Amino acid sequence: MPPISRFDVPTLDELPDDIRARMQHVQEKSGFIPNIFLVLARRPDEFRAFFAYHDALMGERGGLSKAEREMIVVATSAANQCQYCVVAHGAILRIRAKDPLVADQVAVNYRKADITPRQKAMLDFAMKVAFEAHAVDEPDIERLKPHGFDEEDAWDIAAIAAFFGMSNRIANVTNTRPNDEFYTMGR
Amino acid sequence: MPPISRFDVPTLDELPDDIRARMQHVQEKSGFIPNIFLVLARRPDEFRAFFAYHDALMGERGGLSKAEREMIVVATSAANQCQYCVVAHGAILRIRAKDPLVADQVAVNYRKADITPRQKAMLDFAMKVAFEAHAVDEPDIERLKPHGFDEEDAWDIAAIAAFFGMSNRIANVTNTRPNDEFYTMGR
Amino acid sequence: MPPISRFDVPTLDELPDDIRARMQHVQEKSGFIPNIFLVLARRPDEFRAFFAYHDALMGERGGLSKAEREMIVVATSAANQCQYCVVAHGAILRIRAKDPLVADQVAVNYRKADITPRQKAMLDFAMKVAFEAHAVDEPDIERLKPHGFDEEDAWDIAAIAAFFGMSNRIANVTNTRPNDEFYTMGR
Amino acid sequence: MPPISRFDVPTLDELPDDIRARMQHVQEKSGFIPNIFLVLARRPDEFRAFFAYHDALMGERGGLSKAEREMIVVATSAANQCQYCVVAHGAILRIRAKDPLVADQVAVNYRKADITPRQKAMLDFAMKVAFEAHAVDEPDIERLKPHGFDEEDAWDIAAIAAFFGMSNRIANVTNTRPNDEFYTMGR
Amino acid sequence: MPPISRFDVPTLDELPDDIRARMQHVQEKSGFIPNIFLVLARRPDEFRAFFAYHDALMGERGGLSKAEREMIVVATSAANQCQYCVVAHGAILRIRAKDPLVADQVAVNYRKADITPRQKAMLDFAMKVAFEAHAVDEPDIERLKPHGFDEEDAWDIAAIAAFFGMSNRIANVTNTRPNDEFYTMGR
Amino acid sequence: MPPISRFDVPTLDELPDDIRARMQHVQEKSGFIPNIFLVLARRPDEFRAFFAYHDALMGERGGLSKAEREMIVVATSAANQCQYCVVAHGAILRIRAKDPLVADQVAVNYRKADITPRQKAMLDFAMKVAFEAHAVDEPDIERLKPHGFDEEDAWDIAAIAAFFGMSNRIANVTNTRPNDEFYTMGR
Repeated sequence: MPPISRFDVPTLDELPDDIRARMQHVQEKSGFIPNIFLVLARRPDEFRAFFAYHDALMGERGGLSKAEREMIVVATSAANQCQYCVVAHGAILRIRAKDPLVADQVAVNYRKADITPRQKAMLDFAMKVAFEAHAVDEPDIERLKPHGFDEEDAWDIAAIAAFFGMSNRIANVTNTRPNDEFYTMGR
Repeated sequence: MPPISRFDVPTLDELPDDIRARMQHVQEKSGFIPNIFLVLARRPDEFRAFFAYHDALMGERGGLSKAEREMIVVATSAANQCQYCVVAHGAILRIRAKDPLVADQVAVNYRKADITPRQKAMLDFAMKVAFEAHAVDEPDIERLKPHGFDEEDAWDIAAIAAFFGMSNRIANVTNTRPNDEFYTMGR
Repeated sequence: MPPISRFDVPTLDELPDDIRARMQHVQEKSGFIPNIFLVLARRPDEFRAFFAYHDALMGERGGLSKAEREMIVVATSAANQCQYCVVAHGAILRIRAKDPLVADQVAVNYRKADITPRQKAMLDFAMKVAFEAHAVDEPDIERLKPHGFDEEDAWDIAAIAAFFGMSNRIANVTNTRPNDEFYTMGR
Repeated sequence: MPPISRFDVPTLDELPDDIRARMQHVQEKSGFIPNIFLVLARRPDEFRAFFAYHDALMGERGGLSKAEREMIVVATSAANQCQYCVVAHGAILRIRAKDPLVADQVAVNYRKADITPRQKAMLDFAMKVAFEAHAVDEPDIERLKPHGFDEEDAWDIAAIAAFFGMSNRIANVTNTRPNDEFYTMGR
Repeated sequence: MPPISRFDVPTLDELPDDIRARMQHVQEKSGFIPNIFLVLARRPDEFRAFFAYHDALMGERGGLSKAEREMIVVATSAANQCQYCVVAHGAILRIRAKDPLVADQVAVNYRKADITPRQKAMLDFAMKVAFEAHAVDEPDIERLKPHGFDEEDAWDIAAIAAFFGMSNRIANVTNTRPNDEFYTMGR
Repeated sequence: MPPISRFDVPTLDELPDDIRARMQHVQEKSGFIPNIFLVLARRPDEFRAFFAYHDALMGERGGLSKAEREMIVVATSAANQCQYCVVAHGAILRIRAKDPLVADQVAVNYRKADITPRQKAMLDFAMKVAFEAHAVDEPDIERLKPHGFDEEDAWDIAAIAAFFGMSNRIANVTNTRPNDEFYTMGR
């Protein structure tokens, strides 16, 4: 089995209590600890900030469903060629959307995926944030509104694309390996 | 169920005998007719030429295994954002390589996939053919040789990348939908 | 004289009869054997599939004239920096269009060429197929229709751009040299 | 005076105590509240996570000086065309580096800036993380080591480039205006 | 102090009289000789042609103010990553526009700068000339006219973007260092 | 016959004497007035500066032959998709190089042209100046030297690429049509 990351990862008993607790919680729920938890745990303060940010963005709140949030992650992570994020969040997307096909479709070419026009508009915006944020302007945000997205939703889409843009870069540089379990979850 | 393609596709009984026979053959072997067969069959001469070319390139012969040939298809098709080819040939790659993970890995970022250095060199060359063929030069071919690829193998890699570059463009323009069966084959 | 290709090419008497016959036919008509015939003939099955595909796409049929088909070849091959295809099909375009200037114009910048708005729309679509097929969508095809192109013509334009995209990559990797005769034909 | 952001920003007394306290602290130190604080404060949880992450990455620790950390921010933010980050962190870089010219130089073209070969290697790596993280590999990290960077420093450089890549996207989408004070600080 | 350029520069007394006179004139007016004068003076004929062209384009005449002309220089030079031109013309822009902030704003992202819609349209056109002149067409020029630009102004904008595109390349290859004085002028 | 340019061009008798004289001189030598002369003559001062710069760069002097100078023009102008410059300077290159094929070869893909390794190194450098001048550094110039180019030749190559980069942009925006005579000169 190839290593979890090009960086050494700590063992559970080396970790601060709060971080070990979070890992044990996810392990109980999913049956395994996602490798990115172990990689980020080398730096406890970064681990805590990363997951605090993650939780602030990815929960149910406002206009975006949890499945839509994962859709943004999968589309932008695929464009950033981040293996960990596409495989792990692809699994979560399949589960949240209760759809075994959507994650692979969105990863390869979201324009051809079985998604709604609303979701396509959401991903068009997310991709512009991911690759041309310097050119995002009012018309981009206005284009979201006929689809039922408000200003807060625009912020959410942008922030998720931006946060996972960070995450994609970290996972790529650390060469974090997706857990084998993710590949078949929700299929 | 969304349609197979943005173009109408013929029914089996509208088809010339040789084309219907090929479809029935694949249906017996796999249990279904891959949608690209139906889409290309609108143009029988193009269908015949396409599959003649396909068969000339994708069989076992010379230095590349069948799995390696499919790996080239998956890596270049993902970079070309071709949903049909990534999903369908991803399935074939899993089966040929007897590896349930490799197709998703190669599709997202072949540089991080569980493949051999030989296969990585093969994909580096295939990607250069797919995106910068105008700059391919002798050193690119020389870099293949320490990995056991000879001149004929270089031709094969290039021709597969080029042929599926055509295929990717046709599948994207015709908006050909991958059969649902492909998503889970070989996992 | 530099070699015809970086790969060795067969002599006429080494070739299967059908391939030699096709070469002799073109030699009688044009006075010489285009080098790409000799290069592809190293692989008889690929030769046959290539020319079967070529013939299925490039004849007079449906809405595109033969000159328009060659225009697509020249514009996309120039963008792919394929010397063989630009020089050889530039010659054919000059002859088919009975216009000594159009090939050079289309090769350098088709937007500034002496072509009709219909032909410009055709080339806009062909270039999108060649470089962004993943983003081709219904509006792209709708934009063709006011110019008299129907659905079959859209398929033709896309298929020609896709097929010569393959051809450009093969000619570039094999470093196939255009015959000197092409440079002055039709001027 | 144009608004601070395209999003409304809260007033100080609307804010949770911990966030207001952090703002008052920076105001006492610098004489003004950087606009990004006010913009992010619309979302208290995101504010807290953002600054927790920021503080984890930007302090003195390990091999990178504070000036070097700011150099990474300025170079990558300029490439991402983020006005807020270039102007604000350009000011901080001038102060940390005690050099009135370096920020403008690094922003326009770090390859021509008055920086050390070590710093140029650091910025080469940071730019690769910012724009091609999918292709970062062992040789990229090895190239840092002759300049005195160790594995932890590589993580730091990558994480700073990644974190500010997120920050650049958020500042661009929110259209956050740099405070006028930043333009002349440290000149 | 790093050298003025990677090429040796002549001393004042080695120069032809007309060139030395121009330098002394600018020195009297500004207090220093801009380094690009010294670098170009290695080639007296090129120096003369360069400044004749510069003077033909940058004076007050027609619809563009001197500040607007400098704005074009700063925006396109920043996109071309030319340190000399951004720093030197940034200073001139601050002075011509009597605005200490505008140059840094335009250099990082002119879409977010405190400029008028007219100036934004001007810079959109200038950037298209700088990066996609092959695709400039009538609609690009028509888009300028509601902002009060006529055909001659379109020529001016294009010619300034083109001329400084040349200048940016020369300054980058010669590695011409901006004089320290420019950094603080007009702030 | 389509117009010479999208801008009106002056008649010969409207022109200042020196400009008319230059045109008559070229007409006597070549049999026609190149259209770019007429287009630039709308702006006499720019005309004079343009040709003064042109003459300073394109004559025989130093290490580059006149044919090599034209080769730089053709390669970079083709990459900039400038129809006027490729057609006009393609003609001059055929004549200067006494080679009817080289211009078309260099225009489509100089890497595959019948040129010397020295000329290929020259064009590699010229293309880097044309498209990535911000990244040109000492190793680029050192790579020229084993081919017999000295520092002055490096300046010449860079300046020619930069000057015609300007010229390409002006010809594209003015939509200057190459004279029909150029297409067949030197074939």
